[in-house]
Amino acid sequence: MNDTTPTLPRVTDWRALDADARAALLRRPTARLAAAVDTAVRRTLAQVRADGDGALRALTRRYDHVELDAIEVSADEFARARTEVPPDLVRALEEAAARIEAWHRAGMAGEFEIETAPGVRCGRLLRGIRRVGLYVPAGSAPLPSTALMLGVPARLAGCREIVACSPPRADGRVDPVVLTACAIAGIQRVFRIGGAQAIAAMAYGTGSVPACDKLFGPGNAYVTAAKQMVAQETGGPAIDMPAGPSEVLVIADAQANPAFVAADLLSQAEHGPDSQTIAISDDRALLERVARELETQLATLPRADIAAQALDASLLLHVGALDDAFAISNDYAPEHLILQLREPEAWLDRVAAAGSVFCGDAAPEALGDYCSGTNHVLPTAGTARALSGVSVASFQTAISVQHVSPAGLAAIGPCALRIAAAEGLAAHARAISIRLDAENAR
Amino acid sequence: MNDTTPTLPRVTDWRALDADARAALLRRPTARLAAAVDTAVRRTLAQVRADGDGALRALTRRYDHVELDAIEVSADEFARARTEVPPDLVRALEEAAARIEAWHRAGMAGEFEIETAPGVRCGRLLRGIRRVGLYVPAGSAPLPSTALMLGVPARLAGCREIVACSPPRADGRVDPVVLTACAIAGIQRVFRIGGAQAIAAMAYGTGSVPACDKLFGPGNAYVTAAKQMVAQETGGPAIDMPAGPSEVLVIADAQANPAFVAADLLSQAEHGPDSQTIAISDDRALLERVARELETQLATLPRADIAAQALDASLLLHVGALDDAFAISNDYAPEHLILQLREPEAWLDRVAAAGSVFCGDAAPEALGDYCSGTNHVLPTAGTARALSGVSVASFQTAISVQHVSPAGLAAIGPCALRIAAAEGLAAHARAISIRLDAENAR
Repeated sequence: MNDTTPTLPRVTDWRALDADARAALLRRPTARLAAAVDTAVRRTLAQVRADGDGALRALTRRYDHVELDAIEVSADEFARARTEVPPDLVRALEEAAARIEAWHRAGMAGEFEIETAPGVRCGRLLRGIRRVGLYVPAGSAPLPSTALMLGVPARLAGCREIVACSPPRADGRVDPVVLTACAIAGIQRVFRIGGAQAIAAMAYGTGSVPACDKLFGPGNAYVTAAKQMVAQETGGPAIDMPAGPSEVLVIADAQANPAFVAADLLSQAEHGPDSQTIAISDDRALLERVARELETQLATLPRADIAAQALDASLLLHVGALDDAFAISNDYAPEHLILQLREPEAWLDRVAAAGSVFCGDAAPEALGDYCSGTNHVLPTAGTARALSGVSVASFQTAISVQHVSPAGLAAIGPCALRIAAAEGLAAHARAISIRLDAENAR
Repeated sequence: MNDTTPTLPRVTDWRALDADARAALLRRPTARLAAAVDTAVRRTLAQVRADGDGALRALTRRYDHVELDAIEVSADEFARARTEVPPDLVRALEEAAARIEAWHRAGMAGEFEIETAPGVRCGRLLRGIRRVGLYVPAGSAPLPSTALMLGVPARLAGCREIVACSPPRADGRVDPVVLTACAIAGIQRVFRIGGAQAIAAMAYGTGSVPACDKLFGPGNAYVTAAKQMVAQETGGPAIDMPAGPSEVLVIADAQANPAFVAADLLSQAEHGPDSQTIAISDDRALLERVARELETQLATLPRADIAAQALDASLLLHVGALDDAFAISNDYAPEHLILQLREPEAWLDRVAAAGSVFCGDAAPEALGDYCSGTNHVLPTAGTARALSGVSVASFQTAISVQHVSPAGLAAIGPCALRIAAAEGLAAHARAISIRLDAENAR
């Protein structure tokens, strides 16, 4: 279908494909390990639910090869971690946190109240979710940026308890940079637990870890499966979103810099072998140059083997017009959409579904990953058609509230009575009429 | 545990219970039919996925005992339905829709853009979800109010395709009041399909029904299970929220009217045998009077058998102080919270988790069900700890967007480079450095 070389993509002519071939090309891969992951995760969840901290210690011994002493990171360890992080990195984390805070604060919802009829005031209250649990991965590399992206909006939302889990290193400690990012973000407690057992701990609670109302954060297939399972259970926590492999779609015109396009594709490809990378252009020559740049740049990447695997499924699509590129992008609904176009703003109206958009040659996706201010926890696998990235609202609930005076009841009660009658709900009607009658009898 | 008579609740002294007894009392019942429902729903989903419209006709024949001709309701049928609805009911629906629109419009989020650093503008775009599918139940009674509660915010959100499914009556038609409410709300297309097959049709698409990006609406155990299953599938639609049995919790003081409290409990109880009803007061005498009122009012209810079953599990809790009532309510996180208190506003700060709050003696929950303006699709089963009721935001996605000039890249690029280095992501760093180098070389 997709005529790629073993490692590097060639240009595909979109116009030469029929509808089925097009759909096949853009179809996301489904997780292949599903059944094995499912079984292992169910066992882990049951074990933590039954044995609490004991299970956490046993599972950490098995999967992380670490003998846990205290499960919770102490105040002393936080302080020690800070001293171990180079000052310029601390400053970078603080600088990133400040911009993340500025953008998230600007997007916060407000409470409101309006009079919908005389004597009927209806409003909305906002509440920070009381207990939120954040997962900060640290597999092939620790991800302090994720601590910032989850902790800062949780703090702005007014969550009362903000806890996090992150897997221990071989020496049993949580990565000092992660801990420092947690402290900067406002995360109050950190537990040295990773994988599905971390999700189980924050969902059910253990002696050490509090049960949380909502769980957040990216993770591997086990973490993702665990989040989805606990969210399905009666009384289980809510979750931010299902997390799939990371994705980027670049729309580039003839004037785009092929080295920049290739660099953006590679920055996505290095995340993992299942990362999705697509470039679309109305200029075939540009795409050919991107293909050559990919080869050149790949050669000098430390994570070249991972990136090469991801590039194997990468697409370079040549379309007849940029309109077609936006139609493809909207159907695909990428996590990240980069517009390397001369006038990207003029095209924004065409964007119907995407997690985050990067406008212009000077806007690599990596800026959004770290420090432009927007959130990097974004919908993948096409869920951007209906879901949004993490924001302060993700950490809040909106509670509607109505204040009704006797005059208000007189004003809108008859409307409610009429609809209740049509729905055959007599007790609904009586809850209104018994009050109207009492008021009339005064 | 709970010393109730077979049908009517007696007052329980909260202070006399230990922690385990308290937790047991407030535990929601888990669905008992789960396994059988699960199997039937999986079969229905597979059948619709494989056979499309043919499956819809076969399943409608089996479950609704109706031979479907056209699956979609025609324009003629919409017009005919309108002539069959009494004019005062049409006016009530229009009046309700206007207040629902006013409240939902007032709560709409806005787009924004801020400069997070010189040359770095970050903003948020809002987009109506392109295709939304609404489920309007019509089991024991058609629910035109649900069509308003889902259709109005979908229209305000700017969704391009708004479709609905509602089960056919014995004569094969969709209830005329439901159709009229759909037209008033702005729902564009209606299909005469109910149950899990309706959810399957809107999730996968058939010859007649378009595949939707997000599904909304309450329903029975089959509908709810189907929504949760399709949302788990790769490429499946998002859903509004898991829907459980309806719930009300009333906090009343000594001056509350026991007849009003009882009427509110009964208006919840008539929804179904598994409805959850709780009243809490610091005045035992008030609760005793509520118990007697329940008996009196139940006797004259048309749906008394359903309500009596629900009341069997109802709770009348006597607490030492109203503070305790709010603590219980926040742990329980009820769908509806009614404050029959002298100064309800003064207590709102205590409300940490609830779907919708009704303040004062003149604010029965039934007003919110129909026409105060707030939404009646609300989180149940304790999910109000982390989820909110349906709003315009439920029908929109927020897309973050960043515009970065070369000066902006120079300003924040080094921060991103430092964190990328800490995370060991060299291709992320290069996507930034390759641009900084190009700029410096100019």
